[in-house]
Amino acid sequence: MKINKYPQKEIWSELVKRPVLKREQLTELIADIFDEVEKNGDQALIAFNKKFDQATVENIQVSEEEIESSENLISEELKLAIQKAKENITKFHASQIPEIKKIETIQGVICWRENRTIEKVGIYIPGGTAPLFSTVLMLAIPAQLAGCKEIILCTPPDKNGNINPAILYTAKFCGVTKVFKTGGAQAIAAMALGTESIPNVYKIFGPGNQYVVAAKEFAQNYNVAIDMPAGPSEVLVIADEQAIPEYCAADLLSQAEHGSDSQVIFLSTDEKIFNETIEETEKQLKELPRNEFAKEALKTSHFILFNSLDNALEFSNLYAPEHLILALDDYEKYIPKIQNAGSVFLGNYSCESAGDYASGTNHTLPTNGFAKNYSGVSLDSFVKKITFQNLSKEGLQNLGKTIEIMAEAEGLLAHKNAVSIRLK
Amino acid sequence: MKINKYPQKEIWSELVKRPVLKREQLTELIADIFDEVEKNGDQALIAFNKKFDQATVENIQVSEEEIESSENLISEELKLAIQKAKENITKFHASQIPEIKKIETIQGVICWRENRTIEKVGIYIPGGTAPLFSTVLMLAIPAQLAGCKEIILCTPPDKNGNINPAILYTAKFCGVTKVFKTGGAQAIAAMALGTESIPNVYKIFGPGNQYVVAAKEFAQNYNVAIDMPAGPSEVLVIADEQAIPEYCAADLLSQAEHGSDSQVIFLSTDEKIFNETIEETEKQLKELPRNEFAKEALKTSHFILFNSLDNALEFSNLYAPEHLILALDDYEKYIPKIQNAGSVFLGNYSCESAGDYASGTNHTLPTNGFAKNYSGVSLDSFVKKITFQNLSKEGLQNLGKTIEIMAEAEGLLAHKNAVSIRLK
Repeated sequence: MKINKYPQKEIWSELVKRPVLKREQLTELIADIFDEVEKNGDQALIAFNKKFDQATVENIQVSEEEIESSENLISEELKLAIQKAKENITKFHASQIPEIKKIETIQGVICWRENRTIEKVGIYIPGGTAPLFSTVLMLAIPAQLAGCKEIILCTPPDKNGNINPAILYTAKFCGVTKVFKTGGAQAIAAMALGTESIPNVYKIFGPGNQYVVAAKEFAQNYNVAIDMPAGPSEVLVIADEQAIPEYCAADLLSQAEHGSDSQVIFLSTDEKIFNETIEETEKQLKELPRNEFAKEALKTSHFILFNSLDNALEFSNLYAPEHLILALDDYEKYIPKIQNAGSVFLGNYSCESAGDYASGTNHTLPTNGFAKNYSGVSLDSFVKKITFQNLSKEGLQNLGKTIEIMAEAEGLLAHKNAVSIRLK
Repeated sequence: MKINKYPQKEIWSELVKRPVLKREQLTELIADIFDEVEKNGDQALIAFNKKFDQATVENIQVSEEEIESSENLISEELKLAIQKAKENITKFHASQIPEIKKIETIQGVICWRENRTIEKVGIYIPGGTAPLFSTVLMLAIPAQLAGCKEIILCTPPDKNGNINPAILYTAKFCGVTKVFKTGGAQAIAAMALGTESIPNVYKIFGPGNQYVVAAKEFAQNYNVAIDMPAGPSEVLVIADEQAIPEYCAADLLSQAEHGSDSQVIFLSTDEKIFNETIEETEKQLKELPRNEFAKEALKTSHFILFNSLDNALEFSNLYAPEHLILALDDYEKYIPKIQNAGSVFLGNYSCESAGDYASGTNHTLPTNGFAKNYSGVSLDSFVKKITFQNLSKEGLQNLGKTIEIMAEAEGLLAHKNAVSIRLK
C-alpha cells in the first residue's frame, strides 16, 4: 500500500498514473495468427488449440448435445441465481431502448433517429481459473435485446477439450446462437475473418489477456468494431466519517483479487476511518483464497487522506476510475460532481459485486482512464442510430435558400444545384 | 459508369466492394511527426507550417482580433444562412439529450444512467479548396450542447498565414474556445499530446486526408478517442417509377463532386427512369465547375437495374451506404427494411445537401461499409453515459444470495465476501 496524507495538488498527476503496462510488440505475432486463420480456417484453430491450450478438439463448434447436457452439470441454485441476474440485467438494459422522437426543425422538415441492430456480433470469454459466465450475461443479454441475428461466442477449451458448463448454460439461456472452442488471438481472428464453422462478425466484445487485446485492436483493420480499449480492472472508494471500514476493505479486496495488476484506490476525509480501513484490509486479506493476487495488487494501491470531499472528488475525476464507490452519508450531493467514472455505487450497501453480477447494470466498463472519453457497454453498444429526414416541397422551399448560400460559399455547386433544380 | 441490369445475387458481393485504397504504410512517418511535436511543441508546428503549407506563422493560436475581424469579411447573407442552419442543428441535437430514467430492477435496487460531457474535445477542419465551415457547425454545436469545457479547432493556414473567415466566424459563433493554425498529422499530434499553446484533448473529431486519418488512428495509442474510422464519401439512390431523373442525377453529382474517390450508386426498378437518370447525369455533369472530380468519381460508380424494390433494399443493406436516398412513392413502407445506412433521405424533396448543411441532422457519418457497425456523430459522441446504482439494506438483502452464489461459482470469494460482510 502506498499511503499518502493530504497530498499537494502538484503531485496528483503522479498519483493517478497507471503503471505502464509492459506491452510487448505483438503486432507481427498477431498478423501471423490472422494470416494462418485466413489461410487454414478451422484447421488452424484446431492446431492452435493443441499448441496453446494443450487441447485436442475435433469440432470447433460446440455440439447441441454438449450445450444440452450443460444444464445437468450445474446446480439448481446456480441456475436460479443466473435467472434472477438475467431478469435484472434485462430490465435495466430494456429501459435503454429509446423512443423515436420526430423533430420538425422548421416547417416541412422532419428529422429523427431510429436504432438498427448490429446484425452479427462476437463475444470473447477468456479461459483460465474463473469461468466468467457473468460476462456472458452482460454481453449476450443486450445483444439479444437489441435483436442481433447472430450472437456467437468463442472461448478456449480445457485440456480435455471441454467448455465450462456454466458458460455453456448461460450462453444458451441468453440467446447465443453458436459457441466455438477457440481462444486467444486466433479466436478474435476467426470472428473477424470467418472460417468454415465460424461466421465473421461486425463487432467483437469481451475481455482477454494482452494477446486478445492486441488482436481486437488489429481486427479493426478488417473493418470490425470493438467494444472499447482495455486495461486492468479498477475501483476507487471515497469514504467519509460514517463509512464502515469492514465494508470498504471488502470492496477494495474484491477488486484486488481479480489479478496482480488490479488497481485499488481508497480516499477518505476521516483519519479514523482511513486507519481502520487499512487495518481491516490487511486483516481480511489473510483469509482470501486468492490472496496472492490481492497482495500483489495492494502493493501498488494508493490510500490517500484528503481534507475535503470536494478534493477527493476532484482527484477521482482526474483518475477516472472504472468503478467508483461513494461510501458517503450525503452521496446525493456529490453525484453532480462526478465527471469521469465507468459505474458508480452509492452508499454503504451498494457494493461493487452487486453491479458485477446481478443489480442490472453492465460490468463491461472503461478502465485505464478511458472513463474520460468512453461509456461502458450498454444496449447502445449493439445498435447503430440511423438519422432519417423527410422534406416536403414546402420544407425545401423554407430551407432551400440557406442551403444554396452555404453550398456556394463552400464552392460545392452540385450541392447547390440539387436544391435549385427542385425549386425552379 | 458501370451499368448492370438485374445482376445475379452471386455477384452482389463484388458490386458492393469499395475500391481498395492505396494506403501507404504511414505509421513510421506519423510516429516521427508525433515525436517531433512532443519534443518541440509549437516550434515543431511552426516548422511544419512552413514545410507543408508554405506558410509563415508566428503565433499558432489565432488571435482575438483575427476572430473578431472575420465577422466583417463574410456577407450578411452567409451569416444569416449559418444562423438558420445553427438553429436547426441545435434543435435536432438538443432533442438527443436523454431524460434520466431510474429503474428499480428489484425492490431496493435502483439503477440509472446519466450523461457526462467529454470535457476536452478537438475538431480538425481540413484546408484545401473548399472552406468546410459546415463541418464546424456539425461538430461544435453538439460539443457546446453537451457542455464540453474546451472545444479547440485546428486547421491549416493558407500561404499568407490566414484562416478562411467563414471558418473563424462559424467557430466563434458555435462556441469553439480556441483556434489554431496547424494542419495535417501534426495538428492531430498536437491535440493528442498538447503543446505550449494547444491543450491536449480526450477526443478528436473531423475529416482529413490519409495523413490525418492515419494520425487519428495513431492518436488512440495515447488514450485519445476518435469519432470514427474514415473513407471517401458515398451516396446510394433508390428510385422507382415516380422518381424524377433530374433530381436523382443532381443528387448523384452532388456526391461525385466531393472528390475523384467519391462513391456513387444508383439503383432503380424502372428502366425508363434508369435510362433517363443516366442521360441526365451526363448532361448535368458538363455544367459543373468541379466536373473533373465528378467525372473521375462516375467512372467507378454503379448504375444497377433491379426487378424489385426489396432486392434493391437488400443490395443497399449489403453496401451499407453513408447516405441513402429513397426516391420512392411509398418510402414509409421501406423504412423498416433499412438495416445499414448512415443517414436516410426520404422522398423527392429530401436532397442530400439538405442534411449536409441545414436540415438539422449531422453530416459526419460512417463511410466505407462502417454503417454496419457505427453510428454517425450525434450528441452521444460528446458524452459518456455513467451508470449509477443505489442499493438499500433491503435491496442488498433481496439480491445478496444471488450475488454470493454467482461469485462463488466464479471462484471470486472476495466478491462474495463484500456481500456477506454486509448481511451478517
